Amino acid sequence: MYIPTFQDVLDAHERIAPYIHRTPVLTSSYLNDLTGAELYFKCENFQKAGAFKARGASNAVFGLTGTQAAKGVATHSSGNHGLSLSYAAGRRGIPCTVVMPRTAPQAKKDAVRGYGGRVVECEPSTSSREAVFAEVVAETGAEFVHPYNDPRVIAGQATCSRELNEQVEGLDIVIAPIGGGGMISGTCLTLSNVNPGVKVYAAEPKQADDAARSFRAGHIIADDAPETVADGLKVPLKELTWHFVKSHVSDILTAEEDEIVEAMKLIWKRMKIVMEPSSAVPLATILKNKDIFRGRRVGVIVTGGNVDLDKLPWMKG
Amino acid sequence: MYIPTFQDVLDAHERIAPYIHRTPVLTSSYLNDLTGAELYFKCENFQKAGAFKARGASNAVFGLTGTQAAKGVATHSSGNHGLSLSYAAGRRGIPCTVVMPRTAPQAKKDAVRGYGGRVVECEPSTSSREAVFAEVVAETGAEFVHPYNDPRVIAGQATCSRELNEQVEGLDIVIAPIGGGGMISGTCLTLSNVNPGVKVYAAEPKQADDAARSFRAGHIIADDAPETVADGLKVPLKELTWHFVKSHVSDILTAEEDEIVEAMKLIWKRMKIVMEPSSAVPLATILKNKDIFRGRRVGVIVTGGNVDLDKLPWMKG
Repeated sequence: MYIPTFQDVLDAHERIAPYIHRTPVLTSSYLNDLTGAELYFKCENFQKAGAFKARGASNAVFGLTGTQAAKGVATHSSGNHGLSLSYAAGRRGIPCTVVMPRTAPQAKKDAVRGYGGRVVECEPSTSSREAVFAEVVAETGAEFVHPYNDPRVIAGQATCSRELNEQVEGLDIVIAPIGGGGMISGTCLTLSNVNPGVKVYAAEPKQADDAARSFRAGHIIADDAPETVADGLKVPLKELTWHFVKSHVSDILTAEEDEIVEAMKLIWKRMKIVMEPSSAVPLATILKNKDIFRGRRVGVIVTGGNVDLDKLPWMKG
Repeated sequence: MYIPTFQDVLDAHERIAPYIHRTPVLTSSYLNDLTGAELYFKCENFQKAGAFKARGASNAVFGLTGTQAAKGVATHSSGNHGLSLSYAAGRRGIPCTVVMPRTAPQAKKDAVRGYGGRVVECEPSTSSREAVFAEVVAETGAEFVHPYNDPRVIAGQATCSRELNEQVEGLDIVIAPIGGGGMISGTCLTLSNVNPGVKVYAAEPKQADDAARSFRAGHIIADDAPETVADGLKVPLKELTWHFVKSHVSDILTAEEDEIVEAMKLIWKRMKIVMEPSSAVPLATILKNKDIFRGRRVGVIVTGGNVDLDKLPWMKG
């Protein structure tokens, strides 16, 4: 297992700079009053392909040698990583195959294709996904880029908090959602090097709290397909992300489903930005744990903005 | 009739700077590809109180003498101007009364009160509004701040395109929605002084195209309460805004209701920002008139972001 270093982050940042946005940091005096903290929202919802995942995917794709690149890249993801890998491969002009369950929303398949990627469907089970994916790799020789358990991906995601640390002086805390742990790992990697006094908190849906339970247990606990509105956060930690989470994270805070939806709506209403349910989990946990954040300068990573506008969570019921 | 000058704009900008945001300019490579133009979106949806109206209202409020200010300000508006005047008065710590039809949405009344303003209800007719408003002014001696037919308000709105012109080099065109014409008038005032080569286009709903018909007729045509999803654009031109519209605007383009809703959804989806139907009218007209904008550097003023998240226009039917 290769653990990425801060030099990898610096290399990644130089490599991906032409293909990603240096996203803005927004503030809201209303939310500051509400929480008693100074919140700095790093808007990766404005990132290429609509999520921070474009950073890690671009680093993996543009780090390939010419020979590797010619065979293309492949992954399995029905979410932002598949979209981002397709985006990055499109920018380099190489093939990209994304294995997705046939039950995934048509809009997500169309979005991958929109960036030039190929969608190969599997049944909605782990065994089918693994079998179909193995076939794709055998056929194409494509380079597998895992959504998060990959040092190239973590080094790419780590460029986000490097920008945030440059954009906001005197940060006390950075908080980000945790699913597989790619963003949190990158955040730990960067901040432990450039600003080690900053505490890193992770935020997770209570209904998919495998990372929080892993953190308390001291070993990885993986759940089988938990249900949550924060659909980007269902995946479990893996050994590489666990390495960062177990040693650098101050705590993992959780929020209930209705708290996540309420925080999401609050951000849309007050900050006028479109972001995913997953990205609202940090604010939901801040509102529940005001004592931790009060009087602090807090970086909040808004991880993505890819949401189905026809099926917003507060439209239910 | 006092016509505001560019010196009034400079004075306004200095006066209101502590109370408004210098809003960011966002771009979208997707929308550039779609239109063949280079679009620069000036995001007044991120403005204080959620709309550009905070500029004009702040200029009016902070330009009052101490004696005037003590008596407070008043207006009639069920939209962003009422909210913005309440915001500005709250910042100065003076009373603000907003006359609104009793039928106005509760959320709008609550929002005015949220900034410290007082809501006085009238019947939903012009005669009732005028009678109730006259009573309010007689009682309080408050200074009337008209939503747009006021040189202080126009000078305030004019600070928006001053920022835009600084933020984007080499602008060819600026386009903004037109209702009463306050924003368009301010845009004409600024650009005719600082960058007279820039063409100013106005965008209007076809169903409320009184400004377009006035422009062609050469005199003000006022409609009685037209129906459009772009509810900020129902009001007619008045003599002060007509002065700028008739002499400085290149053309007034119109869009159908479904084109406005489609453009709004496209901006939400691709740019990840929450904005009002009124703010989508410019993109809707650009998409219909690509020949005017192709290859041009176009500033697009996103006028506001105050929208009811529970009643989005594409949720209808």
